[in-house]
Amino acid sequence: MANPSRIYTAALVVIGDEILSGRTHDKNISQVAAWLQVQGIRLREVRVVADDTPAIIEAVNILRTRNDYLFTTGGIGPTHDDITVDAIAEALGVPVVVHPEARAILEGYYETRGGLTDARLRMARTPEGASLIPNRYTGAPGIRCGNVFIMAGVPSITAGMLDALSGQLEGGAALLSETVGCWVGESEVADLLRETEKSFETCQIGSYPFWAEGKTGANFVIRSVSAEDLAACTRALVRGLEVLGKPPIAGGI
Amino acid sequence: MANPSRIYTAALVVIGDEILSGRTHDKNISQVAAWLQVQGIRLREVRVVADDTPAIIEAVNILRTRNDYLFTTGGIGPTHDDITVDAIAEALGVPVVVHPEARAILEGYYETRGGLTDARLRMARTPEGASLIPNRYTGAPGIRCGNVFIMAGVPSITAGMLDALSGQLEGGAALLSETVGCWVGESEVADLLRETEKSFETCQIGSYPFWAEGKTGANFVIRSVSAEDLAACTRALVRGLEVLGKPPIAGGI
Repeated sequence: MANPSRIYTAALVVIGDEILSGRTHDKNISQVAAWLQVQGIRLREVRVVADDTPAIIEAVNILRTRNDYLFTTGGIGPTHDDITVDAIAEALGVPVVVHPEARAILEGYYETRGGLTDARLRMARTPEGASLIPNRYTGAPGIRCGNVFIMAGVPSITAGMLDALSGQLEGGAALLSETVGCWVGESEVADLLRETEKSFETCQIGSYPFWAEGKTGANFVIRSVSAEDLAACTRALVRGLEVLGKPPIAGGI
Repeated sequence: MANPSRIYTAALVVIGDEILSGRTHDKNISQVAAWLQVQGIRLREVRVVADDTPAIIEAVNILRTRNDYLFTTGGIGPTHDDITVDAIAEALGVPVVVHPEARAILEGYYETRGGLTDARLRMARTPEGASLIPNRYTGAPGIRCGNVFIMAGVPSITAGMLDALSGQLEGGAALLSETVGCWVGESEVADLLRETEKSFETCQIGSYPFWAEGKTGANFVIRSVSAEDLAACTRALVRGLEVLGKPPIAGGI
């Protein structure tokens, strides 16, 4: 599904009061980001919004229009605070329906677990015209409507949904990266970083300081869609660091 | 600095390619969120954007206008990929200047560390009219311009900056919360949760499932600005769970 001649983009909307209150530490941003990298899709923007219909609608409508794909996490369970499906249906201008396939999945899942109650049936509701994303852990499926992918808030369930989508979405060339770690204050090599990046048009260099073993260090991350440019830029940076008497940390950090 | 009669809101813009690529797991959202709770300020929205001037400007201008406070993390170091100060100055329509107090701080900090080079002097640049937020770890200060607070990307440095701001910002009544954990599938108590929430106008109940010890459980988080309503709503929920034969987990989970 790769089309290396164009850049594919995605956005993510994380829905949940529990993230904005600081109670729950989000794990979906990094797992969705890392998964998208492998699919050859760039994550352009993330928004974290409350369990609030207008906030969800605003974020979904802006971001699904400006990106190839929009993912959401959170708010698709059986309780009153799970309002994602209704909000997204409203954003798309379609009614909410009980999806027959989702209903069948839930009937099977709850057959030995007390049966399909009204609350559980909520999890079979989708925006009209949707297809399902399998959930191999707890039955209740994710939902795809056009370019919008509605996933669970619980990270392990979302991981399974992402796995089910692997290789299914059209993507471009993956953004490749190399990391060079060095015991150096980043301000000491700022010129080298800027000049090296300038010499390789397809490459970006990010600089991320750290403190460890009582010393100052930095990781320099080189990113490119060209494996050849990436290797050449990395070699140039390593040489430059060596010339300054700051050779990279063997094996990285 | 508390004014309990109104609700104060904040937004956060996390700036950094390293978060969107999945390379770095963000820690600033949860620490800023938790800190704001204590200040009596509600975090309304978070956006994660790339190291990209137009993306930063858009997020900053929308969010500073609709909230009492806007915080940013990331992109204020000494290297070429640190563009936050320039982007925010452009968003505010003011020039970037070398802040004399920041310059003096950096001169002191680098006196025994090789001196204040051009790269290091970048960290004394602020939008015109800014004041400084102390950084007790690495010299380079955070920046306040009106209701915009520009902080570091490195979580430990941001923690120090937040600490320096503690009690300095006007806030409202803190949103209080209680958590009730229970070995129950949330779908089994969906009606109880909805009805209990309805009975207490100032309370919201969030439901967060978990799986542990081979069993299904859920944490129910009750939030309110009223300590009295919070206690009453929590009691009502606990009673309701007991009536259903699902008493709360002693000591929580």
